[in-house]
Amino acid sequence: MPVSISDSPLYKLINPDSIAFFGASNNFGSMGTSQLASLLGLGFEGNIYPVHPKEPTVLGLKAYQSVADLPETPDLAVIILPTRIVLDTVTQCGEKGIKNAIIVSGGFREVGAKGRDLEQTLIQTTHRYGMRFLGPNCLGVANPHHKLNTTFLPYQGDAGFLGMVSQSGSFITQMFDYLSRAGMGFSTAISVGNEADIDLVEGLKYLAACPHTKVINLYIETIRNPKKFIEVAGAVTLKKPVIAYYVGGSESGKQACLSHTGALSGPDRLYDGVFRQSGIIRAWSIEELFDMGAILGSVPAPHGDRVVIQTHSGGPGAVAADACDREGLKIPPMPDSVKKELSTLVPHTGSIGNPVDITFSKDRLAYFSSIPGCLLDADHFDILLIYLLLPKHMFTRMMKSLGVPENQIATETEKLIDELADKIEELVQTYGKPVIGFSFHSQEAFFIKRLRARNIPVMQSPHRAARAIAALCRYTNPNISGS
Amino acid sequence: MPVSISDSPLYKLINPDSIAFFGASNNFGSMGTSQLASLLGLGFEGNIYPVHPKEPTVLGLKAYQSVADLPETPDLAVIILPTRIVLDTVTQCGEKGIKNAIIVSGGFREVGAKGRDLEQTLIQTTHRYGMRFLGPNCLGVANPHHKLNTTFLPYQGDAGFLGMVSQSGSFITQMFDYLSRAGMGFSTAISVGNEADIDLVEGLKYLAACPHTKVINLYIETIRNPKKFIEVAGAVTLKKPVIAYYVGGSESGKQACLSHTGALSGPDRLYDGVFRQSGIIRAWSIEELFDMGAILGSVPAPHGDRVVIQTHSGGPGAVAADACDREGLKIPPMPDSVKKELSTLVPHTGSIGNPVDITFSKDRLAYFSSIPGCLLDADHFDILLIYLLLPKHMFTRMMKSLGVPENQIATETEKLIDELADKIEELVQTYGKPVIGFSFHSQEAFFIKRLRARNIPVMQSPHRAARAIAALCRYTNPNISGS
Repeated sequence: MPVSISDSPLYKLINPDSIAFFGASNNFGSMGTSQLASLLGLGFEGNIYPVHPKEPTVLGLKAYQSVADLPETPDLAVIILPTRIVLDTVTQCGEKGIKNAIIVSGGFREVGAKGRDLEQTLIQTTHRYGMRFLGPNCLGVANPHHKLNTTFLPYQGDAGFLGMVSQSGSFITQMFDYLSRAGMGFSTAISVGNEADIDLVEGLKYLAACPHTKVINLYIETIRNPKKFIEVAGAVTLKKPVIAYYVGGSESGKQACLSHTGALSGPDRLYDGVFRQSGIIRAWSIEELFDMGAILGSVPAPHGDRVVIQTHSGGPGAVAADACDREGLKIPPMPDSVKKELSTLVPHTGSIGNPVDITFSKDRLAYFSSIPGCLLDADHFDILLIYLLLPKHMFTRMMKSLGVPENQIATETEKLIDELADKIEELVQTYGKPVIGFSFHSQEAFFIKRLRARNIPVMQSPHRAARAIAALCRYTNPNISGS
Repeated sequence: MPVSISDSPLYKLINPDSIAFFGASNNFGSMGTSQLASLLGLGFEGNIYPVHPKEPTVLGLKAYQSVADLPETPDLAVIILPTRIVLDTVTQCGEKGIKNAIIVSGGFREVGAKGRDLEQTLIQTTHRYGMRFLGPNCLGVANPHHKLNTTFLPYQGDAGFLGMVSQSGSFITQMFDYLSRAGMGFSTAISVGNEADIDLVEGLKYLAACPHTKVINLYIETIRNPKKFIEVAGAVTLKKPVIAYYVGGSESGKQACLSHTGALSGPDRLYDGVFRQSGIIRAWSIEELFDMGAILGSVPAPHGDRVVIQTHSGGPGAVAADACDREGLKIPPMPDSVKKELSTLVPHTGSIGNPVDITFSKDRLAYFSSIPGCLLDADHFDILLIYLLLPKHMFTRMMKSLGVPENQIATETEKLIDELADKIEELVQTYGKPVIGFSFHSQEAFFIKRLRARNIPVMQSPHRAARAIAALCRYTNPNISGS
């Protein structure tokens, strides 16, 4: 495995200084144009050379009739052309000395025997020129830290800590919106398509060495070389958490994978075994893949799996306790010493068990400071799971009751929210224990955004929180957690 | 069971013409004030009489020192007072002749032996006056069709078709935001709290008779009278779908329920049996409860469980196929006759199997008309599950490429989206088969909102769609669906 990221054979493909771009025009109905627009949209700082047989300029950039005409040898060629001219184009790139390509075009192995032959010829051609490539039938790379995005949709939000290798380009480009709404972002995401050259395992190796990547997500339709996969993944998971979603385990999933990327999927049990042997956490849905990534990339490692739940609403507290229990997490009873402390903070209609249920308390700020402080301070708990209900009008009402003038309410509310989020962040730092929120509010709610910005993840339901916490415990303490 | 809703003993409690309100003041730090604000916020059209010992007006309404002073006998009393004065207040209401009460105050059975005694006295007192009541330890009723909302948070969005009876008030009031973002709304939601008088079963009976209610959700911590429950629910489910989430099945869930509403929960297996005997669909998470409600309340009943999946992205299509298969739904292969029709509509890089994967097609509008039309027309499928990726900038790009001037793009986009949504709605009407979308976009995305407004539900992930479709098939065809 490369120790330094720049030693990776994929380095220049993922961090190119210059790009030859084939298949973009000035017609927005074409996929290539959209992909060039994505690249420009993120503000790529190197040279971009559109190659087009007729147009003198493409999306405002000077275009070249052929790759031979380019004033330099670019680091990377991005090819989004009809299947029949891909091979010739790759040859011309090889002649020019280009060493890296992203082949977006489809029509290869995934369409049957004829495509399979074509893919073989493609491999031979690139070998001849010592060229490495992603695809075919892929969307390329999103590396927002390098302002690179070759995929179909514009990158949204900030660069983040989530690395991804995917056998579906959609689960990269179509998740930009999803992730940015959740305050998350990719470090680097790699769409490997048919994996005719660069595969899942090489992508994984790259992300293991990538300093921006804290956690790695995999979307898998097939593992072409299980032995190599287990060897590499086993080493990576000692260093960073890896979470995988595998889609080919059912008969219908298997058939769909076959027509998608020509993947030969195997039975679930087999993949379970591969993941277990590699120390990989298996996610059972797409949302879970990203939930687990969010938690594993942002909270300190817990020392155990004992969860304390804080709520001001009995229902959400009970559901969280039930969900955690079903995931094999421990919900220990509240020890007497802590009960004693809590009894001064919680009204008599509340409960000082686990969950702690504050019910309706007049001192709403205690919910974010003295109460969680008391719970995190207890040796009996490893993780705090806290319910968050913070609709804007609740703050507005509170501000009104404090006599804040109407025109200052918005600013004062934001100030207060920042203070509360700061308090929780301080608690995490003081106690070194994970604090994880859950809420039914929009991920775009101001309070949730401010918490996530401080590495306090807020999950979208108690069940999703419980599943992700269980994954966290499995990764950090594989011996203690059951499932 | 009442045939007409107005025969229900709960009718006046849920549809009152006038309300006495205890516990609201002008201090927004108090729960009662928030609840009165919620009532006013929804624009309740009857008389509201705040009762307050000192204040001459409460939130702008004339206040009364005692219930005896009220100029009429209101239909309903809402009581949000300290535990110690609840009993006296109820007595005074009884003396005034008030026949219905919502007792929000806690401090009864849920806090132990002393509270249990107090609750008994409360029951005896109300019996003496022939009074029916919800609670104690509840949040009352949200009946947006009657502009009634006695709960803590303001009602959001429109009135809808989702009936709910909940042993947690939070899962009513705190879901207003969640539901309105998903374009959903309650028909009537009833928080039953400790169920000292009106219980789950009576709530269920009311919703069975409620003409606005198409589907009923239950949040259950305990069923106090299983025999009566099975008898009533068994009759209701013949008429309307009922979905239940039960929280007390794990040890931690059970403990949490006990301190929440004093509920004595039973083992999972027992509840599974009760639900099965009653024809109730069991949801395994809160989001699932509402997902299933959304689908069961809005699509036509399918004739079977054969699902055809339409996508333009291989990954989401494969995941949907895998998820449906794992839920016991059928994903039949595409018959040759339909393949022939599709072959003229789908490019060669796509797939005309099931899932149908359009990949990148220049005729984007075919995705919403000729392709789904062809799939719905086939006798081989009962349900169409369709992937929706419709980011705003995709429309913007398309409009630009069609030469639409910059300042007309927004209007033209909305117009186009309405046309596309109309087309799908027409297809549902023509073929009488469910069309269900799935998307990773925000539920508040314009396209999704427009579809939901036409009773085309759009689920937040392929897994959530598969789970909800399986529930739909279990309800409409209990004999054919496995799980």
